[in-house]
Amino acid sequence: MSAQFITIEGLEGAGKTTQAEVLCNWLTDRGISFVRTREPGGTPIAEKIRDLVLAHHDERMDPYTELLMVFAARQQHVETLIKPALVNGQWVVSDRFTDATYAYQGGGRSLGANYIQQLEQLVLGGFQPDTTFWFDCDAQTGLNRARARGSLDRIEQEALSFFNRARAAYEQRALQQPQRFVRLDASQTVEAVSEQLIQALEARYA
Amino acid sequence: MSAQFITIEGLEGAGKTTQAEVLCNWLTDRGISFVRTREPGGTPIAEKIRDLVLAHHDERMDPYTELLMVFAARQQHVETLIKPALVNGQWVVSDRFTDATYAYQGGGRSLGANYIQQLEQLVLGGFQPDTTFWFDCDAQTGLNRARARGSLDRIEQEALSFFNRARAAYEQRALQQPQRFVRLDASQTVEAVSEQLIQALEARYA
Repeated sequence: MSAQFITIEGLEGAGKTTQAEVLCNWLTDRGISFVRTREPGGTPIAEKIRDLVLAHHDERMDPYTELLMVFAARQQHVETLIKPALVNGQWVVSDRFTDATYAYQGGGRSLGANYIQQLEQLVLGGFQPDTTFWFDCDAQTGLNRARARGSLDRIEQEALSFFNRARAAYEQRALQQPQRFVRLDASQTVEAVSEQLIQALEARYA
Repeated sequence: MSAQFITIEGLEGAGKTTQAEVLCNWLTDRGISFVRTREPGGTPIAEKIRDLVLAHHDERMDPYTELLMVFAARQQHVETLIKPALVNGQWVVSDRFTDATYAYQGGGRSLGANYIQQLEQLVLGGFQPDTTFWFDCDAQTGLNRARARGSLDRIEQEALSFFNRARAAYEQRALQQPQRFVRLDASQTVEAVSEQLIQALEARYA
């Protein structure tokens, strides 16, 4: 099997970080070489763009400015880290990728899918993850968990309705691309979610 | 006449800053209210993007990352400053705009016009300056002047061939949109260039 590009998606507080550990341990146990990364960010320049996107500014950031910056960071990430790793035979595990843009900017900020699709086509062509693990829980549950963790960045501080729209956009993506998406019920306990994840990994890659 | 959007274009060392002064004085003398701005930049967030674009990084910046960041800054600039000023009846004088992207990224970095056209259409629709004053001089003359000014940013440090391609791309733009473009011979003395500029202003706007 060629090196796989796996993404982890879900709302704040869906348990992505904990489950990414489980995923990476599963790969390590099988001797699979991989790179773990995240979006926005993943390279020094892309992380600087991330800082700008997530920072609080006195000026209102136009939502299309945000969208273009996210894709600028993604371009850098894909060309500098993701594609070279895959070519080199390393798997890539990314905490978020383009689906998050459809969720947060398309759904949350209500920009819709059409503009994002055009931008995605221009920037990425058909470049997609091989598998996307979507840790799905309702927005209120996720927000409660995220807020318990402490101070919120510019996007995390949005209202519940924002995250409800983001969740609906994830659902839309999952329905459109069922081969790539694996939905996991993230409202369960950490252990139960890990078990779902491992079962899905075994089904796909064992 | 409705408020006009005027841009100033040209290579490093073409004398844009000096001639922008002349242009702004001409407007002031006629009691025309205007905003003077620049690209990349023009708003606090767009200036932060500018800083990232022009800074020296240990990592190579992918040329399409650069292009997307320039358009992210432009989106912010257009929506936050340029369009509100024009709606408010103020003229806008910008040191550089989209033509500079065709020149520097399209020509200089050899990305070509097609990708930029698609991105421009997506981001700006048909939004264009009313008049573009192109201060044209050969690349070597401009570079000699710019280097005499001191330390160079990430783009200014490019080779002569880069600026030759940028100039050719400006020429292409001017040929395609002759109504909007006014070419001024910037190889002449400051006084002679100012005189050309004022004649062009009188012809268009007096």
